Amino acid sequence: MSELINSEVFLAYSTYTTIVLLKMLLMGPLTGYFRVTRKAFVSQEDAWAHGARNEESRKILMKTDPEVERVRRCHRNDLENIVPFVGIGLLYALTGPDLSTALLHFRIFVGSRIFHTIAYLVPLPQPSRGVSWLVGLGVTFSMACRVLTTGMHL
Amino acid sequence: MSELINSEVFLAYSTYTTIVLLKMLLMGPLTGYFRVTRKAFVSQEDAWAHGARNEESRKILMKTDPEVERVRRCHRNDLENIVPFVGIGLLYALTGPDLSTALLHFRIFVGSRIFHTIAYLVPLPQPSRGVSWLVGLGVTFSMACRVLTTGMHL
Amino acid sequence: MSELINSEVFLAYSTYTTIVLLKMLLMGPLTGYFRVTRKAFVSQEDAWAHGARNEESRKILMKTDPEVERVRRCHRNDLENIVPFVGIGLLYALTGPDLSTALLHFRIFVGSRIFHTIAYLVPLPQPSRGVSWLVGLGVTFSMACRVLTTGMHL
Repeated sequence: MSELINSEVFLAYSTYTTIVLLKMLLMGPLTGYFRVTRKAFVSQEDAWAHGARNEESRKILMKTDPEVERVRRCHRNDLENIVPFVGIGLLYALTGPDLSTALLHFRIFVGSRIFHTIAYLVPLPQPSRGVSWLVGLGVTFSMACRVLTTGMHL
Repeated sequence: MSELINSEVFLAYSTYTTIVLLKMLLMGPLTGYFRVTRKAFVSQEDAWAHGARNEESRKILMKTDPEVERVRRCHRNDLENIVPFVGIGLLYALTGPDLSTALLHFRIFVGSRIFHTIAYLVPLPQPSRGVSWLVGLGVTFSMACRVLTTGMHL
Repeated sequence: MSELINSEVFLAYSTYTTIVLLKMLLMGPLTGYFRVTRKAFVSQEDAWAHGARNEESRKILMKTDPEVERVRRCHRNDLENIVPFVGIGLLYALTGPDLSTALLHFRIFVGSRIFHTIAYLVPLPQPSRGVSWLVGLGVTFSMACRVLTTGMHL
């Protein structure tokens, strides 16, 4: 199994995992951007840094903004779905699947997550977001099946 | 160390990690199920997809439901605890522990997390949920000790 | 690539990843500590376990506490930033970087996250928290660049 790390499949896993984790990471700065432009902070020190020197202006700056919450929900959905993909995908890559099958899994997953982000943030009418989420979920389940059927030790 | 990836311990890690990540992933559809049956949505496009065509019906469908929030708290607790298990467990499996010791760790962890989910969702009276959470935490700390005592490079 | 797992770089990755994941895990007990000392619970069974036997005392114990929420935001920020570090860092360690370069990445990241936690919980005035977050983000992006430039398979 150890030479599998040298394989093209592992290189593909490495590429797609890095891309999709970077996409997830970018949700952080995006949240920050919306917090600053919408002036919607949660922590007192953030409101202070943006000029809130008295109780009144602090109340104005410390609010919940629907756009900020939308980005945060999208970010959380990424955590819930991309992290299992990274873990199960690593084990899947080590089972030695066909390169074309593996690429199909990785491409569909990363594509579905990028579309999911667009559908969440625009937002596009449902079921576009729901379907892209389910497609990503299906890919991860398919890889998990391969991992468990290749070898198990309970 | 590289032949350790071929070992029974790694196979056991692969099996239990996949199972516990699948369990975590299933919290997503469970949240969706409760949102649809309780008619408790957060995003306007979801309320629209479930028939909210005017301001009034939108207000009825966009609410916070205690059951939905419970599933989400359980899901978040999974993220906080299962993800470190997956990361530290991989490094632990590569330190070459005894198969029986490794299996003990993996089985207790996965068992504790499945029980944690049941205790959270039923809900069972405390301290059942608290204890199952602490047991899982203890397993991860025990594996982290093994990783750090086997070899360190600071 | 497979002998890279035996390398000093991989050992360094293993050490710093374990430390930073343990730090993240400790946010869980810290949340619990604040919930118990501030008597601020979310679940009814928790309020019950702390003596809430009637509707009135339940309302007193089930509240939102600013300190608890602060710890939880810090914990969530850890999930959003440390998890991608663990994933991308593994792939980075397998690209065979210089030990000194790798150590520089790992040390700055772990240092920035420990400082981030202190800055969040004290709290220190901004931009201390913001800067430490950006430094950690920069390290992960730098490692991702190395992974993608070493080899890609799209």
